[in-house]
Formats: sequence, C-alpha cells, structure tokens
Amino acid sequence: MGDKAEVPSRRSVLGWGGAGLALGAAAAGGTVAALGDDGDGTTPVAESGAAVPFHGKHQAGIATAVQDRLHFAAFDVKTKDRAELIELLKEWTEAAALMTQGHPVGQGAYGGIVEAPPDDTGEALGLKPSRLTLTVGFGPSLFDGRFGLEGKRPKALVDLPKFPGDNLDPARSGGDLCVQACADDPQVAVHAIRNLARIGFGKVAIRWSQLGFGKTSSTTPDAQTPRNMMGFKDGTRNIAGTDTENLRKHVWVSEKDGPDWMAGGSYLVARRIRMNIETWDRTSLKEQEDIFGRTKGEGAPFGKKREHDEPNLKAMPEVAHVRLAHPDTNGGAMMLRRGYSFTDGTDGLGRLDAGLFFLAYQRDVRDSFIPVQLNLARRDVLNEYIQHVGSAVFAVPPGVRTDSDWWGKALFSEGA
Amino acid sequence: MGDKAEVPSRRSVLGWGGAGLALGAAAAGGTVAALGDDGDGTTPVAESGAAVPFHGKHQAGIATAVQDRLHFAAFDVKTKDRAELIELLKEWTEAAALMTQGHPVGQGAYGGIVEAPPDDTGEALGLKPSRLTLTVGFGPSLFDGRFGLEGKRPKALVDLPKFPGDNLDPARSGGDLCVQACADDPQVAVHAIRNLARIGFGKVAIRWSQLGFGKTSSTTPDAQTPRNMMGFKDGTRNIAGTDTENLRKHVWVSEKDGPDWMAGGSYLVARRIRMNIETWDRTSLKEQEDIFGRTKGEGAPFGKKREHDEPNLKAMPEVAHVRLAHPDTNGGAMMLRRGYSFTDGTDGLGRLDAGLFFLAYQRDVRDSFIPVQLNLARRDVLNEYIQHVGSAVFAVPPGVRTDSDWWGKALFSEGA
Repeated sequence: MGDKAEVPSRRSVLGWGGAGLALGAAAAGGTVAALGDDGDGTTPVAESGAAVPFHGKHQAGIATAVQDRLHFAAFDVKTKDRAELIELLKEWTEAAALMTQGHPVGQGAYGGIVEAPPDDTGEALGLKPSRLTLTVGFGPSLFDGRFGLEGKRPKALVDLPKFPGDNLDPARSGGDLCVQACADDPQVAVHAIRNLARIGFGKVAIRWSQLGFGKTSSTTPDAQTPRNMMGFKDGTRNIAGTDTENLRKHVWVSEKDGPDWMAGGSYLVARRIRMNIETWDRTSLKEQEDIFGRTKGEGAPFGKKREHDEPNLKAMPEVAHVRLAHPDTNGGAMMLRRGYSFTDGTDGLGRLDAGLFFLAYQRDVRDSFIPVQLNLARRDVLNEYIQHVGSAVFAVPPGVRTDSDWWGKALFSEGA
Repeated sequence: MGDKAEVPSRRSVLGWGGAGLALGAAAAGGTVAALGDDGDGTTPVAESGAAVPFHGKHQAGIATAVQDRLHFAAFDVKTKDRAELIELLKEWTEAAALMTQGHPVGQGAYGGIVEAPPDDTGEALGLKPSRLTLTVGFGPSLFDGRFGLEGKRPKALVDLPKFPGDNLDPARSGGDLCVQACADDPQVAVHAIRNLARIGFGKVAIRWSQLGFGKTSSTTPDAQTPRNMMGFKDGTRNIAGTDTENLRKHVWVSEKDGPDWMAGGSYLVARRIRMNIETWDRTSLKEQEDIFGRTKGEGAPFGKKREHDEPNLKAMPEVAHVRLAHPDTNGGAMMLRRGYSFTDGTDGLGRLDAGLFFLAYQRDVRDSFIPVQLNLARRDVLNEYIQHVGSAVFAVPPGVRTDSDWWGKALFSEGA
C-alpha cells in the first residue's frame, strides 16, 4: 500500500557500509522475511527465525501472526522533562528498529571502546530475529499534564470501569507507557525489554512486567487455536491478521475517528487473569464443557463437529462462555486477541500462580472490551474459576513510517 | 547398555491395543526418536519434537541433550503414611512414562466418563512430545524418620553448608521431593508438573517452583554454549552427554559408592542465583570481560581465539570466574551443568528479577559442588553482581528399568 519508498534501509540510518550490514545479517543468523509486505506488519508465513519488518503504517505485533512467547512491560515515566521523554522515544525507536531485525543495539561490536558499558547487553547475540515485534502504547496517565499532552488524550482512551469481581493489584496495573515484545524465542523478547529499560535508565522505570510462555490465540486463518491453561481452545473466533475488512472495522483507528495522531493505531487492553487451577482440575468434564460451551477434546461448539464450525448459541447454556463472549451476544463487537498463558511459580499456599495474560486490540474500547467484559463479569459461570488481578489500557499509535519518524512523533508534534 | 529386553512397551503397561497406541502416537503429532538408545537417557540427535525414552538405567534429563525450557518443582510431602507415598510414586512413574512419550495421563479420551474430572488437564493435547524428560529427586528431609527411611540416607546427601554471601529464602529452598521437567515447548513442561501436582493432591504440595526460559549450558559436544543473562557464555567446559568416561567419573553414582539404591543415580544441586542486572549493565566491557576471564563477543578465554580453546588460566586475573571455577583450580572437580536463565517479572524497585537457575548433577557433592562453590563464594569478583537466593540438594535415584519398576522402588523395598 505504497509506503515502500519511504522505508529506510538500516544502512542509511546507521551509516553502515554494505559489508558491515551483510556481516550483521549473517551474524544474526536470520533472514529478513521476503514478504508481500503491505505495511500492515503482518507475516503471512510464520517462518520462526525470520525478521518482521519494523516500519509500516501500523505497528507490527498486532496483525502480525502471533509469535510463541511474550515479554510485556509497563513503565512509569520518571523524568518531568518533555524533551527528555521525546529523546527517549527516539532512542527506543532506533533500538527497536535494530533489534527487530536481529541486530544488537548500537554498533554492537565488542572490540571497540572497552572502558564503557557495552551498547548491547549481549544475551541475544547469535540468536535469530525470531519474528521479534516491539509495540509501544501510551497509558491514560501520560496525558495528565506533566508533558503538555492534556489536550491530546483520545476520547476513546477511557479509564476502564471497575468490573464485578475485579480484584486488581495496583502494582500490576496501569503504566504511562507499555512495550509488548513478542518473539518465537523468549530470550529475544526478554533481551529487547531489558535493553529498552536500560536505555531508559533514570527516565523511565518498569512498573510491572509479565512473561507469557504460550500463545493462547491465533491470528492465522484456519490454524488450530492453542489451548489455554484450562485445557480449552478459547478465542477461536479471532480476527485474522490477513482479514483486512475486520481489521479496518474493529481494530485500526480511522482518520475520522480522531485524534489525528491515532489514525492507523489501535487501543490495547491488558488483563492479568489468574486461574484457580487446582479447583478447575477437580471439576468434572461435563461441567468444564458446559462452562465453555465447547468440547474439550476437539474444541467444537456444542452440537457441532469441528473447532471452527459456526456455534449454535441456543444449543449451549445461556451463561456459557462462548455464548456470552460471542459477537452476536454483544452487538457485533470483535477484538483482535493475542493473549498468552503465564505461570509465575507458586503462591504461598502451594497453588500455581498461573492463568491468562489477556491482550486485545480494538478500534474503540467503549464498544468492544468494555461491554463484552461487563457481560462476562456479570454472568459468565467461568468467573468461579478465574479472577482479574491486573488491568491496563493503552493508546497504541500508528507505525513508524520513515527513518525520520519515531514512536509518538505525531503526538508530540506541535500541530497535531 | 543391554537393558533392551527389560524395557516394556506402553502397550503392555496399559493394555492398549495396537490400534489405540498408533492413534495415540499420531494424535500426539510426534515421533519416538529412533535412537541407538543405550539406556543412558541421551538423545544424541536433538530433534525437537521427538520423544526421549523414559526407561533406562539412568533417569533421562541428566545426560540428555539439554532441552530449551524448564519447569522445576520442589514438593513437601503432606501425608504421614508411607504406603500412600509409595502409591503416589507409582502413580507419578506411570504418568511420567505416558507424558514423556507425548500421551495424556490416564486414558486421555474426552468421550468417556463426563461426571468425573478428566484424567489429564488437557493443555498439552496436540502438542509434540517436545523431548520432555521428568527427573525425580529425594531431598534430605525425606529421610527424617516420617517414612522409615532414616537409615537409608546416603552419606553423600549432605546438608549444604552456608556459603559466604548466601541470602537464602527458605520459601525457595529445600523440599522433600523434586521433579525437573525439561522440554523444548514450555507448555509441555508446565503441563507435566501441573499434572504431577494434581495427581499428588492431598499427599504432596508444591513448596516452590521455577520456570526457566533459556538454557545456559550445552551437553552436546562442540555446540556453542548459550549465553546467560549477563551476555556471556559460561559453563563452556561442561560434561557432554555422550562423554561416558566423564559421566562415569563425575556424574553417576557407582555400585561401590553406595548405598545400593543409588547405584546409577546422581546428586543434584539447585541454586537460584539472582543477578543484579541493572548494575551489571552499567559496568564497562573491560571489567565484564576481566570478571569472566572471557571475551564477550566470541566467548574465548583470555589470550585465545575461540570459545572451546583450552584456557590459559595464568593469562587471566586470579579472581576471574573461569579460573576459579576451572577443574584445575578445584582438584579436577567437574559437574554436569544444565541450568536455565529465569526472568520472574520485576521487583518492587523496578528491577528485573532475573538470573540463573543453576542445576548441576554430580557423583558426590562433597568433592564437587561444595569445594567449587566455597572457592567461588570466597573469591569470585562476580559476587558483586550476583546473589544466591535459593538452594536445594537432592538424591536422584537411577532410572526406571521395567514396567514393574517405579521411582524409588529400591529405596522403599525392605532389603535395600
């Protein structure tokens, strides 16, 4: 869709010679995926070692085919200096453009200045790009007046209401900024967040972070939906990364939605959903299946044969999860979900601290996540087995298009 | 070598028909690796989807080529009934034999009894065996008299001394039992520990657990050593899983070492080593390299070109990590290391809770881990950047050889 001429090569950004770039690519051991790239950040073919293009009209990591692993971090901005925050966002953008292509941050060679800390922490050296995507978001608190952004908060960036049953830990909620790092190799995702935190030292601090070890949704049409920690395929009816029609209708903010700086962006809701694993595991198969409205083995909706068969909502209990979450029950609301299972060890009572780190992208939370979650929080029988313990919402700006562009440029520019 | 005749097929254990077994293997989507299996639990070829044989004279998961991911759990035994503990170990063995071959626990089908909880929690259905290994160990506290084992504690199963700098959290230390689950897919490893915990409900409870996202050592000769969270290749001089000479000398307990029930077993030391990531990242390259005694880029010992070149210990600082940990500095002591990097979110100060979950197998901790760690704890300059925060030691019994054998049978049998 025509942004190709504007996409810079890393050569021009860094002044690397051709030989140096070739060496870099070889050292990273990966190939830059040769894609029919339409600037949507999608990778139609999920070649696990490949690089996902960083530049485009949307940020990668949304419509991109879901990678295997996640490291998500929410940051508090510590500096009160707008110029320092802008400088950081520029440095982050430059580092992200390098890391997503499998390169180390900075010049990366360990033969140069030895009296300074290395530009890159090194633990991803020799690893493939692993389809790393880095996706940035701006939380409601960024618009509180510290940085002269109070007039620029999108109307759609609402504070989420308190839902019935919420038991939110403030230490796992909110954040001025977020970065979602997804990759097929967890070391690559962890390395990326760590290096962004290192670059931001003194200006930002990690407020909370979450590792996800297994994807729970697919944005690839016809793929089997991965199973969640309850053993079920949930989120079967997801928006495919190639479904431009539903992406346009339900995910990407349009120019007329406003504000201007969000056109091509999206809104992200993150919820840490703890599952009462031990209680669930002692529940009968029939009850488990009634709760989801699906069979456990195949994942077929009640009365149907296969996972992707269209559900007959009337064939399942009124309070079944599939029925309550279905677009037909929610005025057509759809979100692009790309959540991950987590297991963070064991709590003080010997129970697994495990569940779903829910991530959903949408054009407007007011007519998607909020009404759907109100419906679920009030009626879903699954609530007996889960608890929402962390929550955040972010405005995710459009993609970085050129080498003079950076994360948030339109937001921070005077005219926007 | 030569236990082949005793190794049962899963058919005979479960009474499955040939058709059922074939279906099971197909459903698991994996292939049982066709190995020149010598009963050592090794997988010379690391085909990531394959199954590692469960039965053999040693437990798998020690000399086995290191898998990508870890879920480790230490358990407290809650029952006071010896017979109930024995029953649990039998059930665990049966479940482990199934899960490591890519099968669900129990009959696994979700079409049968629906009024009972499913035999298997389901989240690994459809995933490959992923080289899952499950390795059990017995902690010192198991021999405290509750189960009539007080006379059977091996002399080598000592309580570890307090090392200088230790800052151990009791909630992350010790345990009556442990299970190490390693697999190339983290969901497979998490599923295995969860199902063993579920089977043990009421008899055992998880005391602590640890996820490891990236291996930090290799037991495959000539492979590059993976980098730790400090960006260095550490533990280069590891014992290869095919190095039968060093395995015999340094890893496997021999018949004359005693006690009889440990012949073919090993001793496992687990240490949770937190790294002060943010401090390390602000340390100069020169200081980082001096501390390890290796270059960061290639991982070559000082004065040498390549990672696997024999280090010239005198070319590096006396307190360099490589020099202090080298067998020549420790009377020839060697261990088989198979530790993993961990990142468990962020602490209350915005710092990554990350580091190395150190796992080392050895024939006798008294002349391997203990002297080496005393040497390191007293003198290693790396100590400024790390802290040992969890610790445990376990006697790891030999492998399960036949379908009438089970984890700990020789320990619990009258005559042993």
